[in-house]
Amino acid sequence: MDFGIPRELSDLQKERTLYQPVPPPCLQGTTVRVEFGDGTTTADASDAHTISRSFPLTYGQPLVHFLRATAQVPDAKIIQEHPVIRVGVVFSGRQSPGGHNVIWGLYDAIKCHNPNSTLLGFVGGTDGLFALQTLEVTEKVLSTYKNQGGYDMLGRSKDQIRTTEQVNAALAACQALKLDALVIIGGVTSNTDAAQLAETFAEKKCPTKVVGVPVTLNGDLKNQFVETDVGFDTICKVNSQLISNVCTDALSAEKYYYFIRLMGRKASHVALECTLQSHPNMVILGEEVAASKLTLFDLTIQICDSVQARAEQNKYHGVILLPEGLIESIPEVYALLQEIHGLHKQGVSVESMSSQLSPWASALFEFLPPFIRKQLLLHPESDDSAQLSQIETEKLLAQLVEDEMNKRLKEGTYTGKKFNAICHFFGYQARGSLPSKFDCDYAYVLGHVSYHLIAANLNGYMATVTNLKNPVAKWRCGGAPITAMMTVRRYARGPGVIPIGKPAVHPATVDLRGKAYELLRQNAVSYLTDDIYRNPGPLQFEGPGSDAKPISLCVEDQDYMGRIKKLQEYLDKVKSIVKPGCSQDVLKAALSAMSSVTDILSVMTAPSFSSQTPF
Amino acid sequence: MDFGIPRELSDLQKERTLYQPVPPPCLQGTTVRVEFGDGTTTADASDAHTISRSFPLTYGQPLVHFLRATAQVPDAKIIQEHPVIRVGVVFSGRQSPGGHNVIWGLYDAIKCHNPNSTLLGFVGGTDGLFALQTLEVTEKVLSTYKNQGGYDMLGRSKDQIRTTEQVNAALAACQALKLDALVIIGGVTSNTDAAQLAETFAEKKCPTKVVGVPVTLNGDLKNQFVETDVGFDTICKVNSQLISNVCTDALSAEKYYYFIRLMGRKASHVALECTLQSHPNMVILGEEVAASKLTLFDLTIQICDSVQARAEQNKYHGVILLPEGLIESIPEVYALLQEIHGLHKQGVSVESMSSQLSPWASALFEFLPPFIRKQLLLHPESDDSAQLSQIETEKLLAQLVEDEMNKRLKEGTYTGKKFNAICHFFGYQARGSLPSKFDCDYAYVLGHVSYHLIAANLNGYMATVTNLKNPVAKWRCGGAPITAMMTVRRYARGPGVIPIGKPAVHPATVDLRGKAYELLRQNAVSYLTDDIYRNPGPLQFEGPGSDAKPISLCVEDQDYMGRIKKLQEYLDKVKSIVKPGCSQDVLKAALSAMSSVTDILSVMTAPSFSSQTPF
Repeated sequence: MDFGIPRELSDLQKERTLYQPVPPPCLQGTTVRVEFGDGTTTADASDAHTISRSFPLTYGQPLVHFLRATAQVPDAKIIQEHPVIRVGVVFSGRQSPGGHNVIWGLYDAIKCHNPNSTLLGFVGGTDGLFALQTLEVTEKVLSTYKNQGGYDMLGRSKDQIRTTEQVNAALAACQALKLDALVIIGGVTSNTDAAQLAETFAEKKCPTKVVGVPVTLNGDLKNQFVETDVGFDTICKVNSQLISNVCTDALSAEKYYYFIRLMGRKASHVALECTLQSHPNMVILGEEVAASKLTLFDLTIQICDSVQARAEQNKYHGVILLPEGLIESIPEVYALLQEIHGLHKQGVSVESMSSQLSPWASALFEFLPPFIRKQLLLHPESDDSAQLSQIETEKLLAQLVEDEMNKRLKEGTYTGKKFNAICHFFGYQARGSLPSKFDCDYAYVLGHVSYHLIAANLNGYMATVTNLKNPVAKWRCGGAPITAMMTVRRYARGPGVIPIGKPAVHPATVDLRGKAYELLRQNAVSYLTDDIYRNPGPLQFEGPGSDAKPISLCVEDQDYMGRIKKLQEYLDKVKSIVKPGCSQDVLKAALSAMSSVTDILSVMTAPSFSSQTPF
Repeated sequence: MDFGIPRELSDLQKERTLYQPVPPPCLQGTTVRVEFGDGTTTADASDAHTISRSFPLTYGQPLVHFLRATAQVPDAKIIQEHPVIRVGVVFSGRQSPGGHNVIWGLYDAIKCHNPNSTLLGFVGGTDGLFALQTLEVTEKVLSTYKNQGGYDMLGRSKDQIRTTEQVNAALAACQALKLDALVIIGGVTSNTDAAQLAETFAEKKCPTKVVGVPVTLNGDLKNQFVETDVGFDTICKVNSQLISNVCTDALSAEKYYYFIRLMGRKASHVALECTLQSHPNMVILGEEVAASKLTLFDLTIQICDSVQARAEQNKYHGVILLPEGLIESIPEVYALLQEIHGLHKQGVSVESMSSQLSPWASALFEFLPPFIRKQLLLHPESDDSAQLSQIETEKLLAQLVEDEMNKRLKEGTYTGKKFNAICHFFGYQARGSLPSKFDCDYAYVLGHVSYHLIAANLNGYMATVTNLKNPVAKWRCGGAPITAMMTVRRYARGPGVIPIGKPAVHPATVDLRGKAYELLRQNAVSYLTDDIYRNPGPLQFEGPGSDAKPISLCVEDQDYMGRIKKLQEYLDKVKSIVKPGCSQDVLKAALSAMSSVTDILSVMTAPSFSSQTPF
């Protein structure tokens, strides 16, 4: 395959290659100040022990903030030396718009600090890494890939670096190529692999530092340190445009219900954001279904009741969104998938699988239409989860709803027009899109941050940029140990996920207590009945809308890194006020206040307060 | 249903409502000059008699050109009087982006010439017309629909005005509402209906004038007078964006063949334009298949050979486009569809249909996968053609190709990786899009032209704007009798189309001798093997790409109306040079030259030269 070759671009693509993202002030110029924060822990204190045991060398490392050289922070040091370095970069997992810009930002930062340094791209993804297939990234190679979609500058292949064989191959490659650092661009599984690789490298005294970058269209690499992922904004914009077009279509033709399934794996972030953008009539979030333990039958009845209520208003059209992970969130289907997955592991052939299911799983299996049966039996993905993109949940639900509506029509409990459904799966057509301006900027800045993590000699970190809802000039740049983003699942959830008890960066599900979900709930009735469809329009690069960011990012009040810094300031201030020599009264007041603060926090962080649900 | 109510718009939608298309100079101001050209004939001279017999009152009317008031044309008159008029407007057929702008342009032109005139929109399409359900179009009603997609300001329903009952209902409605004119917005079938309605109105001495406007995403209302249709540009841009994204995806993941079916009815205009925009690996035009009489088996082998050739270059990905009408272009499937259609007409139930097929049709039917069988048996559309949007030809071909590749793999004649296909249908997600700038302008100007046709008291005309590849200021505005666009089919083509021998505006197929197709042929090998994918990007409203027009429109050297005028100039010039009193030599030279010209033209227009193929 020919990678990295210049290619013919359309006028718009050409214009986009000329767009130059500007890093925030803290990363401008060649002198960047590094401030080390406190050593990190994990969101759930009870996981700390397990994680620290699995990652003895990379757990508990401090948070890192990058500040402008002139910043007034006493302990922050400026990294003065920028020796010649060799860095490798690899795409891992599903392509996500903006991936190329991470490489571009990394390249610019490397070259700006030492023009003799080298950036090697592994071609064909992790397979290229194992096989030492590299392409030196140059200005020429980058020229037609700046601000462009896809991963085709380098390509991608298998999505993991997990088995002992793979880890050893990666180690051998980094040693053979004398890499000072390896940057892994990917989502939750790729970053879990990155953390494992960092630990192994440290253990084997391999000098290569491993850095992860959060790039995934699913938007599910989300935690205290990571507000959103590269690609999520673009995917939601492209999908919202199409959903809105379908809404307009529904309202014009007035005769169809559109069932639209959205790519995004287990979590429903894409579906939630698209709903807030386009205002379709209904969305069924996997997290809601799992939390309420709704069965396939419950869901069908719920949709049918809505269809019937709309028919009473003389409305025979509608748009219903489903996340691709929905199917795994339905309890009985999930259990069936687990059985199938178990049989796959035992090497049972697809043909004889149905006969080996438990009686209840077999009953459900036989109830399902043949096309779904075939799809449920597909071999699992490289991360051992079900092949969600291939399971046409939208068709299954549309058919069950149609059957139920026909039944009601026959029984006379429904007297409206015949129910007509049209199904869509929106996924592949968004993944390759030109990245939005936000994703171009975010990815480019993350590339820069990756360089500074390498220059600071850090291993097992993820590049982070926070305060993203504000303009680029206010973005905070830094890094956090990937281990600080890990959790340990004590219950299995989802067929074939990371084994129970093994620390991993898990996909974040939609927070049902979060502000984005609250916004949805407030408007759900109005969306359902009033057809207040909204069209954000096609992704724009100039004019109105071109600077828009995800609604879910903007309503969620994040800036964790900013708050961590603010807290440090308060603590420092207490120290500086209550210096030896201050009055007894001041000291007493400080003691009393601080004792109450620590009491509250101790209670809040005790294991029983843990937010982890068996989910 | 609540039509025409103001609604919540996104920032981009709001910005778009502020965009004001500017009509070309010939339509600016309140004084427009009307020039009547010669009486019209038909493209195929042998059809003239049949058409004139069916349309005794509206056939042969002259071409009309609108010129600026200051134009130096002796015979053109300025319409001075603009009495108060009442005009009705109706959407008929599949919604197409830009439809709302026709109404806006019509409204502006009506109000600019007489503020007391009224524009009534029929709500819910032709059903609203039959039932006299109207909504007065006002500035307020229009406010949130300017430059917006869909037909939802008024809605649409059944797509025809054809049966005696329907025609009588339309007549009664126009009389009851005292309409001076009825403007019908739609594609080939709707405009055929418009012509029939005009004839009937003339015959019944109903004073309502009927005007048709070419609005259809299929791009198949194309003839001497109509260069393209409102909506076609937008549809191709939205689809090309998605196709290009999928191409990028294919090149990034390197493991899938994407089969993409495109909405656009029988003709392959959308597929051709999208191919020229995005450069996918393959496109299978229905017109090519029909012309070469390729069977389903031939097509499968052709695709498999290409897949195999690419595999030899180590390429296991690709993108293949299919028009939705392809299925009808495959001879044996077409014959099967005709049999099924015949059985539908006889009232045979779907269940017992397969048993009543002829032996060979039955054999083909049984060979096809069950999902396709079910789809082929669906009830026909309102224009009696097959429900093309519901027949998943892409899945059929993908499956046949997969079967054949597996067979070759087993036999050892193919030794590459396993063939993987992913299928898409792009249609509904484009139809509701915000219209492109070109479609906004074109539709708005057509709305103005419709008014001037009404002011000139013309009946049975279609509004036309030509020279579209040039800037708006150079567009030529006019009108042509719809009857001049009709042809008579002497062979049936497509299940249940207009009965043989009945004049109609037929969908124009892709011209295999045209320049757009030539461009495709020149590049086909390169597209297939070199992966020179091109991404026109999302539809832009500002910056590069926002003024782009369809490639097929730009490469085709049209401007028929301009040439008709040019010819008139030459004829006038000959007359003015060869005036009584000129020399004998000049007269002799003129005679000799003109005699040779007329000889050539007579031979060229003789029936045997007719371009009509049994197609």
